[in-house]
Amino acid sequence: MTTQNAPLQSVIWAEDRLDLLDQRLLPEEIVYLPLVTSEDVWEAIRHLKVRGAPAIGISAAYGVVLGSRNETTPKRWLEEVLNQAEYLATSRPTAVNLFWALDRMKARAEQLATAELSLDEVKQALLNEALAIHSEDEETNRLIGEHALTLFEDGMGVLTHCNAGGLATAKYGTALAPFYLALERGMSLRVFADETRPVLQGARLTAFELQQAGVDVTLICDNMAGMVMSKGWIQAVIVGTDRVAANGDVANKIGTYSVAVLAKAHGIPVYVACPLSTIDLNTPTGAEIPIEERSAEEITEGFGKRTAPQGVKVYNPAFDITPNEYVTAIITEKGIVQAPYDVNLKKLFNQ
Amino acid sequence: MTTQNAPLQSVIWAEDRLDLLDQRLLPEEIVYLPLVTSEDVWEAIRHLKVRGAPAIGISAAYGVVLGSRNETTPKRWLEEVLNQAEYLATSRPTAVNLFWALDRMKARAEQLATAELSLDEVKQALLNEALAIHSEDEETNRLIGEHALTLFEDGMGVLTHCNAGGLATAKYGTALAPFYLALERGMSLRVFADETRPVLQGARLTAFELQQAGVDVTLICDNMAGMVMSKGWIQAVIVGTDRVAANGDVANKIGTYSVAVLAKAHGIPVYVACPLSTIDLNTPTGAEIPIEERSAEEITEGFGKRTAPQGVKVYNPAFDITPNEYVTAIITEKGIVQAPYDVNLKKLFNQ
Repeated sequence: MTTQNAPLQSVIWAEDRLDLLDQRLLPEEIVYLPLVTSEDVWEAIRHLKVRGAPAIGISAAYGVVLGSRNETTPKRWLEEVLNQAEYLATSRPTAVNLFWALDRMKARAEQLATAELSLDEVKQALLNEALAIHSEDEETNRLIGEHALTLFEDGMGVLTHCNAGGLATAKYGTALAPFYLALERGMSLRVFADETRPVLQGARLTAFELQQAGVDVTLICDNMAGMVMSKGWIQAVIVGTDRVAANGDVANKIGTYSVAVLAKAHGIPVYVACPLSTIDLNTPTGAEIPIEERSAEEITEGFGKRTAPQGVKVYNPAFDITPNEYVTAIITEKGIVQAPYDVNLKKLFNQ
Repeated sequence: MTTQNAPLQSVIWAEDRLDLLDQRLLPEEIVYLPLVTSEDVWEAIRHLKVRGAPAIGISAAYGVVLGSRNETTPKRWLEEVLNQAEYLATSRPTAVNLFWALDRMKARAEQLATAELSLDEVKQALLNEALAIHSEDEETNRLIGEHALTLFEDGMGVLTHCNAGGLATAKYGTALAPFYLALERGMSLRVFADETRPVLQGARLTAFELQQAGVDVTLICDNMAGMVMSKGWIQAVIVGTDRVAANGDVANKIGTYSVAVLAKAHGIPVYVACPLSTIDLNTPTGAEIPIEERSAEEITEGFGKRTAPQGVKVYNPAFDITPNEYVTAIITEKGIVQAPYDVNLKKLFNQ
């Protein structure tokens, strides 16, 4: 396995097609799927070949371009853009980033249709919009990484949980962004990745993408986090998040709360990295965030073999809530926020 | 699957043979192996069909009986007892309980050889010694369970980690003993079993044996312990131990320390259940207990399927040390001990 000093990219625009990393095959195989039609993109999103909200949104934006590029009149082109956007929106009904990206593509096409441009020019302009969505996501993540890096020092050990990495985004990821930037600058960080049961995103994705890039990463089981902290190997914890409430409570992959409590007991700061779009000021506290419970089989037969007795009761929450008192700082593209979060998160949006 | 209101027994003496539960097949198959020769017993110990220090010692004691029962003179009988004990000691070179049980069988045989008894009588007396080792272990565990039960109340939720259960012992186990006694008495406890990565003893063994017996058990991933505690579902933690140091530091399966820190943060007591033989007054503190590191493959391909990238660095300690300040009480067959452990553990031995 060769390393490349940069995160593996999950979405690549290759002149006239979309090359998509098939994440279902990771970490055993690295296969890029060449997608040439919007149907290809729909299938890839539907069947989880691409995962991560930003990566899904970016893929769908390119899907609109692929689905409308053969139209021969401006009128038909606009109709097809709108049709394709509706069609692609059906690929994953609950993905907010997907709808956001498709709405942006539709709005841009409607704007272009009224401009004094040739058909070739509007097609190119719409492709540019997809490329902009792509590069803006990369820039957001790079900025998150820059801010996060100010909190780290050469030689530190940093623990992360689940996967908030480059595979889920245009590049860099959120929680993993500082590791890639540190590598670019010759700064040495030692990363510990929780394997993250039951779905093992830490083992399958985080350990994989960091190892690919040449980051110093060590895989541990979730229950080893406390011991590794007690040995003095960890100076910071950094994780992503699915939603931040207005008071700074953080919803993230199950196990984040345990890691945060352990970190506090060891005097280790806990950082949460996310774009502003993940902070929901309309959700007052973590108590208002519903916690999805998933099937018992994820735990009892997740390794391809049954590892627990038939019929045993299982509790399998997909997320947990980390109360704001365990969150040392929230790192966004607009800067770093600390408590009191109810005041400071609002300020961030008003900047 | 039927329940039986009692723990599944891993070692059963059946008149003229030893019936051994093949623990390698759990939880998918419940198969008792009929062992009729000492070679059968040696094989079963060597190939981990039986696990748990007490269960291994008991099996070996019966192995001596099986290996010497066909001798036709008292002299040959004694020679064969000693030979068989030497032979069975080679089945698992590091198992302390194994040597202890075999030494006891040898000493008893030498004593019997000098007594005025018929050959049939000495053979029966040696079998009685094996039966005594077996029943004393059961009694020790029952007493541990009785003492532990005084700490629990009807309706409590109790979390356990790894497997310190009936499968590893004659009956009841140590940490699981109070659950079986509670069941016998109609007391309702709600048990949460950590699956216990990487080898999943909690999922494969604890959840299995408690479910078999009809105990209310819910399986969770290790990283869910914090969330389950924060929901108010857990009123006590109870675990077994591999070794207790003279100052009350506890070595146990990796992840125990994380559970103990989480429990303390939630104001939940942590109980450690073990026979006196597990308390080592010659080990001053946990710092003197060596921590075995095991192979990366236990984490990266533990269940027949690779779940992490090839060549990734892995840290895989088999045990961790829980410092005495996290241990609310240690429960033995002679009673319950609390801090200061350096004083009170010594007292226990001198009682």
